Amino acid sequence: MKKNTNWLYALGAAFLLTGFYSCKPKNTSDAISGDAAQKVYVAPGKYDEFYNFVSGGFNGQMSVYGLPSGRLLKIIPIFSVFPENGYGYSEETKPMLNTSHGFVPWDDQHHLELSQTNGEIDGRWIFANANNTPRVARVDLTTFKTAEILELPNSAGNHSSPFITENTEYVVAGTRFAVPMDNDNGDVPINTYRKNFKASISFISVDKNSGNMKVAFQLRVPPVDFDLSHSGKGKSHDWFFFSCYNTEQASTLLEVNASQRDKDFILAVNWKKLEEYANHGNGKKEAVQYAHNVYDEKTHSATSTIEKEVTVLDAKDLKDVCYFIPCPKSPHGCDVDPTGEYIVGSGKLAALIPVFSFDKIQKAIADKKFIGNYDGIPVIEYEAALYGEVKKPGLGPLHTEFDGRGNAVTTMFVSSEIVKWNIKDLKVIDREPTYYSPGHLCIPGGDTRKPNGKYVIVYNKITKDRYLPTGPELAQAAQLFDISGDKMKLLLDFPTVGEPHYGQAVAASLIKDKSVKFFDINQNQNPYVTKGEKEAKVIRNGKKVDVYITQIRSHFVPDNIEGIKMGDQVYWHVTNLEQDWDVPHGFAIKGANNAELLVMPGETQSFEWNPEKPGMYPFYCTDFCSALHQEMQGYVRVSPANSNVAISFSTGANLPDTTTAPPLLGK
Amino acid sequence: MKKNTNWLYALGAAFLLTGFYSCKPKNTSDAISGDAAQKVYVAPGKYDEFYNFVSGGFNGQMSVYGLPSGRLLKIIPIFSVFPENGYGYSEETKPMLNTSHGFVPWDDQHHLELSQTNGEIDGRWIFANANNTPRVARVDLTTFKTAEILELPNSAGNHSSPFITENTEYVVAGTRFAVPMDNDNGDVPINTYRKNFKASISFISVDKNSGNMKVAFQLRVPPVDFDLSHSGKGKSHDWFFFSCYNTEQASTLLEVNASQRDKDFILAVNWKKLEEYANHGNGKKEAVQYAHNVYDEKTHSATSTIEKEVTVLDAKDLKDVCYFIPCPKSPHGCDVDPTGEYIVGSGKLAALIPVFSFDKIQKAIADKKFIGNYDGIPVIEYEAALYGEVKKPGLGPLHTEFDGRGNAVTTMFVSSEIVKWNIKDLKVIDREPTYYSPGHLCIPGGDTRKPNGKYVIVYNKITKDRYLPTGPELAQAAQLFDISGDKMKLLLDFPTVGEPHYGQAVAASLIKDKSVKFFDINQNQNPYVTKGEKEAKVIRNGKKVDVYITQIRSHFVPDNIEGIKMGDQVYWHVTNLEQDWDVPHGFAIKGANNAELLVMPGETQSFEWNPEKPGMYPFYCTDFCSALHQEMQGYVRVSPANSNVAISFSTGANLPDTTTAPPLLGK
Repeated sequence: MKKNTNWLYALGAAFLLTGFYSCKPKNTSDAISGDAAQKVYVAPGKYDEFYNFVSGGFNGQMSVYGLPSGRLLKIIPIFSVFPENGYGYSEETKPMLNTSHGFVPWDDQHHLELSQTNGEIDGRWIFANANNTPRVARVDLTTFKTAEILELPNSAGNHSSPFITENTEYVVAGTRFAVPMDNDNGDVPINTYRKNFKASISFISVDKNSGNMKVAFQLRVPPVDFDLSHSGKGKSHDWFFFSCYNTEQASTLLEVNASQRDKDFILAVNWKKLEEYANHGNGKKEAVQYAHNVYDEKTHSATSTIEKEVTVLDAKDLKDVCYFIPCPKSPHGCDVDPTGEYIVGSGKLAALIPVFSFDKIQKAIADKKFIGNYDGIPVIEYEAALYGEVKKPGLGPLHTEFDGRGNAVTTMFVSSEIVKWNIKDLKVIDREPTYYSPGHLCIPGGDTRKPNGKYVIVYNKITKDRYLPTGPELAQAAQLFDISGDKMKLLLDFPTVGEPHYGQAVAASLIKDKSVKFFDINQNQNPYVTKGEKEAKVIRNGKKVDVYITQIRSHFVPDNIEGIKMGDQVYWHVTNLEQDWDVPHGFAIKGANNAELLVMPGETQSFEWNPEKPGMYPFYCTDFCSALHQEMQGYVRVSPANSNVAISFSTGANLPDTTTAPPLLGK
Repeated sequence: MKKNTNWLYALGAAFLLTGFYSCKPKNTSDAISGDAAQKVYVAPGKYDEFYNFVSGGFNGQMSVYGLPSGRLLKIIPIFSVFPENGYGYSEETKPMLNTSHGFVPWDDQHHLELSQTNGEIDGRWIFANANNTPRVARVDLTTFKTAEILELPNSAGNHSSPFITENTEYVVAGTRFAVPMDNDNGDVPINTYRKNFKASISFISVDKNSGNMKVAFQLRVPPVDFDLSHSGKGKSHDWFFFSCYNTEQASTLLEVNASQRDKDFILAVNWKKLEEYANHGNGKKEAVQYAHNVYDEKTHSATSTIEKEVTVLDAKDLKDVCYFIPCPKSPHGCDVDPTGEYIVGSGKLAALIPVFSFDKIQKAIADKKFIGNYDGIPVIEYEAALYGEVKKPGLGPLHTEFDGRGNAVTTMFVSSEIVKWNIKDLKVIDREPTYYSPGHLCIPGGDTRKPNGKYVIVYNKITKDRYLPTGPELAQAAQLFDISGDKMKLLLDFPTVGEPHYGQAVAASLIKDKSVKFFDINQNQNPYVTKGEKEAKVIRNGKKVDVYITQIRSHFVPDNIEGIKMGDQVYWHVTNLEQDWDVPHGFAIKGANNAELLVMPGETQSFEWNPEKPGMYPFYCTDFCSALHQEMQGYVRVSPANSNVAISFSTGANLPDTTTAPPLLGK
């Protein structure tokens, strides 16, 4: 059934090779201002001015950088196991990666959004999306740990996510890939796409005190690819705007077939009205399955619950909620300026940037200036919604953020540059090359009502010759520009882990003083906690053995354990008794197929161990904790299944015996 | 059987709290010289001067930093799965993590050693140890990939590893934990330690052309804890020196029981004589099991072979090979100066640094200046081996490297400082505080015959208040000092991933021009390669389905696949057809329990997929590859097991059908 599609490739190749691969910017001189070194240097012991939270792309995690130094302060594991601190390995954290598909060890993390109050960053949480197996996570910014992960039903390629409303009332999550919905028969020919495939946008409510998330309702929408979104602000508070491409509804060779139309859409959704419809019972309840995983800081443990129901409202049944706005061509970014009046669509194949007016959109709706409908949803006249166009901005506009001084900065993927333009007169003010192929960019607070326009950070897709080579696989990179003056100035290149897909930055002062330094051992409610060395024990219950073991500089209690037998399922419940900052202990045991833990002060973490043969197994602390860290070790003896060795455990009891003389020096 | 051990803890606590926890250095002013910013600033687009390879500690990987910028250029996965590039997940790389205990997803990586020729770094390979499940790895510095992993039998806690001889003839690996040997009955009481436990040192030969490793022979040694080692140089070329502690042979509460004696040992081994004995058949062959894993760059695939035999020589049977040298107290580092004459033992509980003389050791052996023997091995008189002592160097000396100008620099864990002293007169020249609790340090080439004494990089164990807080878990950190002048000058703090246990640095010029940029698709010998789009196919063989799929900007061939059924074991063999630098493609499919791949240009990588229910599954490229990356997607249909849907596959064939009209704009 494989057809000759050479003509398509030829078409595609000609199209692409001529313009749409990344090209080296014309101005490739590295014009660095003389004081750049001083501007990015954060002297030893001094703090950076901003936290920069950067999505990890294909590593599924979130990275935290300090700015202006570009130093990597932390990787926060979210959607992937983390063979560094035990996330996804410990019994306490395994449930975080549970999904309706079972345990998923690895995902692709694209967008982040810091929680807001009144349209300003409030420093409480940061939300993150998983693209591949659709989920939204909430990270707690007092512990820098993933606090909650919510799977999304009726979704595939959760790309247009997680964007939030001005008071974090909702996190939205739009599907990139249309698919048959979960309740429909998915075993259908792919070429019945237009008949059988749908898309959906989830509205996740966030409890304003606890932050707990819930799929409040879903909006069913036509089978196009949703890319990005942003909520309105101020006067447009009630609205959400979503970019979408593949309005051709192609299901194969999208690089050609989804690039046919001159304009795709921005979808404007009145979420306040949608909420009203949902509250008035207009939604249909569907039986679906999706995981809701919550990490409890009191027990230091996660639980995973499979939710069974979702409320769905169909866009075409709601006459005053959804409107399409034509947008040239294959729009990618969809960004709203700090006033809430201007909505910027960045068509990656467009040669201009359209800026839409919220007031004009409202008037066009009132005046019914529609050119027709698309799958039952009214399509507003382009000119009726348009404020104006930025002409000749560069090639391949992708994303825009705002400096709070009336300017926008847009990345140009194809011409490898950032372009600053004035929102009012739409004139280009400045352009600077980037290295190379920038995707997202970030101005601290640059998508909120109150941007801090000191810097822009640009996240590049290609680095090639920018750093010392490291074989075929190279780091991707960010670039820091000073945008405080009229002219943007490149200050620093810094490589990143994973793919730095998007980032958000915030003044350190909003977060740093709330940081938890250690966990109070007295508040530890883990069912397997050991609150002091006297409580340490080893308990056999049939084939299950629970080892309640403590760590404090620099010994384990117990450190000699006997009586484990082949076939036992051994759980090591490791409690770090330290009550001071920056004194984690690690735990490893030889040959374990689920090898290690890293335990924070006051915390209990557990892992399962199934010894594979009788013998003597050493264990030790893997985090250099004191001058006598190398002495922090122990042994566990494993006997055959039919052995009569009883459980015993101790520390310091098995002192040098006198039956075999210690080999002393011969003097 | 749990005894009251409170008295021991009280003793330990008093001992430790008074002196051996890290303390803040007295001089805590951050005295940064005015030009530090300029000295560490590497302008955008410029290259760093040095590669700094840094062990990842409890993350099991190796990190590559650029110096002087401190920028993280790459994480090379070695001993842990890497949910970023597919290492340990792809069928091709899974065998790399096989061991005699089965698949081990995560280990603890402590030391690194760059290969040498004539005692100088040659830039070919870098070796790395796994502590927990004892292994040594070789990383290829043309691809920056792990090329080989060799497990070690008769070992536990492979800490004194991987140190090398001057022409990389051997990599040595000494056990930290004594255990019953693999052939002995390990199911013994822990308090029979002195009778039943042994230690061993492995000598791994390295093929000088291919780099291939082999356990040439093992040396069986008394059950003490081996910590670190270094080979001799020049006149001491034939010798290896190992620090060891726990000469008390304690098996519980080592922080007290292994800290009893005023002196432990450095073990001097004449490896040339040992090699002769081995070559003359003096060793005993033992039947053991250990994995030997090799990655082939032609097939882009690893194989794992279980080796069955090792040759063991017992130290006490070899009268002119092994000698103990007393060394105060609980020695940690064991470092040999560039001339090969001076051997520095750093006793972590000692108040001085002993420097031994190779010539005096030789004379003491010739003159039989022994004070007795330890487990059958002669113990040389301390004074007969000693060149002299560095007095009052600081508290908690751990590790020493050399600047090539006659000076040594030693880290002081407890007093948190580095101390520079003259090797000849043993006088302290300079001291600088570090932040906090330094472990290893690195001068480029600082443990070779030709150090490059421009910088010292210090790897700290505690960071506490040095960076913006990130909850209870903080990054560990490195500090860069300029040591080109008389006075050492702190230039830069940079946080690290994992635990920066040790590092080695080398001038970039030795490596950068040999870096492979992509793989020649014509040389790709992976059995599942697809060398062009016309060869793409989907082959069913019973329940096994092989998908031969290609990637090139920006589409898959095929991108529509039908005929997969429940119960199928589907292997996706993904070939990246690009032939240019820095154009990887990624691959992910919704809900996969082994989710992703990252494929370099010219490479084939495979992963197994077992769909868990019938339906429609999208897949897509996870590495932003072009302006039309968002269009690089496909669908695979999964039917019930009894379905009669035949295998079919295509790209561009399922064009918009005419039976259901595309929802066009209504104009």
